Amino acid sequence: VVFGDASLAKALRGFEVTAALGDRPAKPTLVAVSRLAAAQRKPGQPRRPGGRAQYDYFRAAIDAARSGYLDAICTAPVSKEQISRAGVPFMGHTEVLAEAFGREVLMLMDGPRVRVALATNHLRLADVPGALEARKLAGQLRLLSDGLRPLLGRRPRIAVLGVNPHAGEGGLLGREEIRAIQPAIRLARRAGVNCEGPFAADGLFARVGRLPYDAVLAMYHDQGLVAAKALDFARTVNVTLGLPIPRTSPDHGVAYDLAGTGRASVEPLAAALLEAAALARH
Amino acid sequence: VVFGDASLAKALRGFEVTAALGDRPAKPTLVAVSRLAAAQRKPGQPRRPGGRAQYDYFRAAIDAARSGYLDAICTAPVSKEQISRAGVPFMGHTEVLAEAFGREVLMLMDGPRVRVALATNHLRLADVPGALEARKLAGQLRLLSDGLRPLLGRRPRIAVLGVNPHAGEGGLLGREEIRAIQPAIRLARRAGVNCEGPFAADGLFARVGRLPYDAVLAMYHDQGLVAAKALDFARTVNVTLGLPIPRTSPDHGVAYDLAGTGRASVEPLAAALLEAAALARH
Repeated sequence: VVFGDASLAKALRGFEVTAALGDRPAKPTLVAVSRLAAAQRKPGQPRRPGGRAQYDYFRAAIDAARSGYLDAICTAPVSKEQISRAGVPFMGHTEVLAEAFGREVLMLMDGPRVRVALATNHLRLADVPGALEARKLAGQLRLLSDGLRPLLGRRPRIAVLGVNPHAGEGGLLGREEIRAIQPAIRLARRAGVNCEGPFAADGLFARVGRLPYDAVLAMYHDQGLVAAKALDFARTVNVTLGLPIPRTSPDHGVAYDLAGTGRASVEPLAAALLEAAALARH
Repeated sequence: VVFGDASLAKALRGFEVTAALGDRPAKPTLVAVSRLAAAQRKPGQPRRPGGRAQYDYFRAAIDAARSGYLDAICTAPVSKEQISRAGVPFMGHTEVLAEAFGREVLMLMDGPRVRVALATNHLRLADVPGALEARKLAGQLRLLSDGLRPLLGRRPRIAVLGVNPHAGEGGLLGREEIRAIQPAIRLARRAGVNCEGPFAADGLFARVGRLPYDAVLAMYHDQGLVAAKALDFARTVNVTLGLPIPRTSPDHGVAYDLAGTGRASVEPLAAALLEAAALARH
């Protein structure tokens, strides 16, 4: 099911076209959420109605998912700037999904070389240490373990990072590891999660390729994403765990400079679609 | 000049052996700082006198450097644990050098894929945002620019990272970029440093290989070292900038499990020696 503009009908030959889903669709379907005028949908020339429409496609997919009509959501890149210009406050897909489904979610970057989840995300660095709590971290470890299990077909092995240099070096370089991260690992292990740590981030990512772990729980944005992007850029699928249905997305932006040129690679979006299908199958 | 145990004389054939340098040496020289008994220097079996000796070799090299007898120092890995057991408080080579020479120093990881310097190093994460000051950062940018110039033969182009996710996103995700990092870049540029930023760390390291920069100034330990180690592990040379003479070192530990087996790679130490020579030549 594609949620988009009515004008896509021409490109999506063989798709049924409808204004809204009333049931689980039996055939490939285009849900025509918008009917933009030709001048408003020129590739690479974003206009305000397009910004609004990007957001509306996503909300229509969420509504369909909540009605039980979908097994997974794969989102294409959107422009936060264009959505904001259209007057919609928008931090990101992940935040909207968490609110719409009323769930704690976990962002996982699933790349060919490394799989990294983030314990905190869009948080100023000064607020990261205080945001780390044992029970919350343990819940995230359970989400990560449960979320990856269908992909792996077995219980995932998870490495947990420290938040301080050298994972705090026994308290000398910070005590969040002792106060929150070590207790979280103990709680999660008691709940059946196969996890170890806390590990020094630089030492752990140095061993990528020879690591006995299926995924890494990083404590904050740059700690996890520097590794994910340096090692796997553009081949990483962004997965939101913790929702009633999986959500995936490619890890790149709208690239308005490539829109309509035929030079954009479809591979990242294809990989995200395939991963959504794989996760939904379980 | 090798600073080590008297027993090395056998392996270092053709080297002059002395107890201490009294001048710039004219020939390859072994400075026999220690005379350990055979039982105290078994490879891979560290004893307390060996821990003390590791530290003494380093101090002897510093003394020789301060007397003007050396053009650069290349340090082999030491065991912080063994040095501490011998009763010497020791955080790392870099800290000892900063104190011995009374200089602000900057740690640079010089790898084949990425060159990263650290604005802060062994600091708990909670203390990082408050430690960032415009004048100090500007001084580090000058150190980095001056330090790299001899290696490159021209003025280095430097990328400066933000400290918050997305480099603070214009203040939404933290204000250290506005308070300290942007002013530091302006100060440094006025002093002739070719630097730009602040950049989001994950986006910048995603572009490694296609970056128009010679080096990156990272704001803290994991932000810089996760990238350096993930991309360049064991091929990175650790350089201390800001001293009267350059100091380099390989980026690995003592590997006691490999000591004496003949299986350890000499390449990282050789690369560090060559880099010390290259930096000293200027």
